[in-house]
Amino acid sequence: MRMYDLIQKKKDGLELTSEEIEFIIGGYTRGEIPDYQMSAFTMAVYFKGMTPEETANLTLAMAHSGDMIDLSPIEGIKIDKHSTGGVGDKTSMIVGPIAAANGVKIAKMSGKGLGHTGGTIDKLDSIPGFKTVLSEKAFFDCVNKTGIAIIGQSGDIAPADKKLYALRDVTATIDSIPLIASSIMSKKLAAGSNGIVLDVKTGSGAFMKTLDDSIELAKAMVDIGEKAGRRTTAIITDMDNPLGNAIGNSLEVIEAVKVLEGKGPADLTNICIYLAANMMHLAELGTLEECKELAVKAIESGAAKQKLIEMVTAQGGDPEVIKDTNKFKKARFHKDVFADAEGYVTHINTEQCGIASMLLGAGRETKESQINYQAGIILNKKYGDEIITGEPIATLYADDNTLFARAEETLKGAYKIGAAKPDPVPLAYARVSKDGLEYLNK
Amino acid sequence: MRMYDLIQKKKDGLELTSEEIEFIIGGYTRGEIPDYQMSAFTMAVYFKGMTPEETANLTLAMAHSGDMIDLSPIEGIKIDKHSTGGVGDKTSMIVGPIAAANGVKIAKMSGKGLGHTGGTIDKLDSIPGFKTVLSEKAFFDCVNKTGIAIIGQSGDIAPADKKLYALRDVTATIDSIPLIASSIMSKKLAAGSNGIVLDVKTGSGAFMKTLDDSIELAKAMVDIGEKAGRRTTAIITDMDNPLGNAIGNSLEVIEAVKVLEGKGPADLTNICIYLAANMMHLAELGTLEECKELAVKAIESGAAKQKLIEMVTAQGGDPEVIKDTNKFKKARFHKDVFADAEGYVTHINTEQCGIASMLLGAGRETKESQINYQAGIILNKKYGDEIITGEPIATLYADDNTLFARAEETLKGAYKIGAAKPDPVPLAYARVSKDGLEYLNK
Repeated sequence: MRMYDLIQKKKDGLELTSEEIEFIIGGYTRGEIPDYQMSAFTMAVYFKGMTPEETANLTLAMAHSGDMIDLSPIEGIKIDKHSTGGVGDKTSMIVGPIAAANGVKIAKMSGKGLGHTGGTIDKLDSIPGFKTVLSEKAFFDCVNKTGIAIIGQSGDIAPADKKLYALRDVTATIDSIPLIASSIMSKKLAAGSNGIVLDVKTGSGAFMKTLDDSIELAKAMVDIGEKAGRRTTAIITDMDNPLGNAIGNSLEVIEAVKVLEGKGPADLTNICIYLAANMMHLAELGTLEECKELAVKAIESGAAKQKLIEMVTAQGGDPEVIKDTNKFKKARFHKDVFADAEGYVTHINTEQCGIASMLLGAGRETKESQINYQAGIILNKKYGDEIITGEPIATLYADDNTLFARAEETLKGAYKIGAAKPDPVPLAYARVSKDGLEYLNK
Repeated sequence: MRMYDLIQKKKDGLELTSEEIEFIIGGYTRGEIPDYQMSAFTMAVYFKGMTPEETANLTLAMAHSGDMIDLSPIEGIKIDKHSTGGVGDKTSMIVGPIAAANGVKIAKMSGKGLGHTGGTIDKLDSIPGFKTVLSEKAFFDCVNKTGIAIIGQSGDIAPADKKLYALRDVTATIDSIPLIASSIMSKKLAAGSNGIVLDVKTGSGAFMKTLDDSIELAKAMVDIGEKAGRRTTAIITDMDNPLGNAIGNSLEVIEAVKVLEGKGPADLTNICIYLAANMMHLAELGTLEECKELAVKAIESGAAKQKLIEMVTAQGGDPEVIKDTNKFKKARFHKDVFADAEGYVTHINTEQCGIASMLLGAGRETKESQINYQAGIILNKKYGDEIITGEPIATLYADDNTLFARAEETLKGAYKIGAAKPDPVPLAYARVSKDGLEYLNK
């Protein structure tokens, strides 16, 4: 077998066999296939696509290129959840405790943020004492004890994907649906859960800008998961609006706790109940409707918040800041941002909101950047809200007040204001499961 | 400017500016742009193509990446001729002397053969004493003295093309018409002639398998040449049949001399007269018809053969073997090949003929292979000929008679024999010049 012939085959739009795909991924991971052949191959994939079989085989080959986590020491059904990334997305810290409070086992590995997107690990790191680095044994012990643990990605998970993603990132071949789907799913398959709920973001702040592309990506990922024997559901959710009001690490933990207390913003609460219900449904706790009721009850009874407190305690964090979020350290400075015009918020560029938060110190401009955990933004006005003179559209938080000027300008640029109240947009557009595509209007 | 953005731009099907193309070629030649970005780029070019402006700019950038030969010390109009490569193609040794006998200046650099294709330089090297390596001054002196010199490619001609071609060769991106056109034309522009006649081969033995592709390539090359201020004409000729009867180095020189003596095979003689006429027409010696008459006269008068003798003498070769080709060293062994069936030759796979000749020692299997100059094949039966029992279809020549078995098998496999006499095929299908496309039926 020669890589040259496989590039040619893909270029001609033919389907590669599983042996051929294993040859490519194995050879590339071992350094036998050079970058210049792999980048020509990925560009051919960009133009010619991959069949569902090819995509599944690519994903499996990448998953098996490194450690395959064996979660069998954890009893029960393990459900993972993944978001394609967004701004102000603190759902993992909410849906995990809700599902765990209902008996679903959550043994989750999360990532760090880069650029305008935040990372669950950074948010959890804002909890004093919380350990996001645990040995495999300690990780399993935490899940067996409390039903939930969330740690940073550890070990050698899908090294082929890591190498390939870095190459795609410099050769303009990121935006290929089979390559995105296999990249995400290779890590999820290696992470070992029985089922996976995928939160596929769509809109200006998301990787997938159109609903059609988001649905295509969701279908590709569900297909991979099901082919690999994992129950998989994808929910396509809106990212034309930041989720909730808080952007920034401890600010988002505080908002997550509020949702678990039943006092969170409606958009965030509703989407979390729906995502958690889908996780519970995959764990066979009932119909989707029954699971939604169980999710609501877990909030109302305080069981979900209690589960978060247990998780924080088990992972070495200070539970007092969760019990009373006023105990979180505050930023030294804050600054209100006012709009230049009156009217209604007709659009929020979530990517720019994320950049404004990064400029305040809440995110990483480069991999080496240090994060300020208390910095960030509280959005007071969201899509459809009326701008009233004298009311700030947002409040910025930082430990260094020289950072406000650029962040304020960026945030103001993220808002579009119009004379008429815009039509409401759904929080979730569609659901893709093994039973097919279902349009939602939530 | 970033290479990433230029890959993205080409991937999106947008037109690159001349500055952008210079950035790519300059950066790649200097090693600042890595192979893995360049191969992703060339794959995007394969799928999205290039506009005529982009192709011309790419060609100019590659031509200027190394030496630009200045032929101004040679008086008169210098016309180059290039063939896209074939089997048994000895036209340069015929059309050069015909055109030079009519006053056209030929200062030509040619290549060596590899694999199934022969190279003019190897053929000339079969003439005892002939020097294909000359200093620039000696090269110019030869042309000024006799009107013609043919040497091997020397100096640093289009190094960007050399590097890019090697990359395309291992990443399955050879077969892109703008990339082929710019590769050929960058070397021709750097070689300095005022005008160029391109012999674009089409058919099973050629790089371009279909007439449409050949016409597209011809148009692209003529467009580049004219945009760069060089008079350029392309003739699309048949390569479904080897040209003439001889394949192999001294065997082809002998056949070339026969054509110049007016005793060569009709197909080869006719195509050479037409190509030479096009060269003379570019040198403004008259209409194409008038130039054809001049070409015929140069053969009939012996002036063209005399010009070849002068060239060989000036370049240090033994003119006696040209005056009397019986003086060429002969191969020690020969073997007749007979067909297994009776009927008519309905197809000859020219690539296989070239491989058979290589197996006899006449060509290079790898760049390091030594050539046997007297080895090769004389084809007795060509397309449309009747196979008569007892008449060999070909005769093989070699200095080592253990080489016959594989070559014979390969050559027999190249022939298809049918019951009915096939329709004749033209020698030349079309002509592309600055005045457009003209279909031929020669």
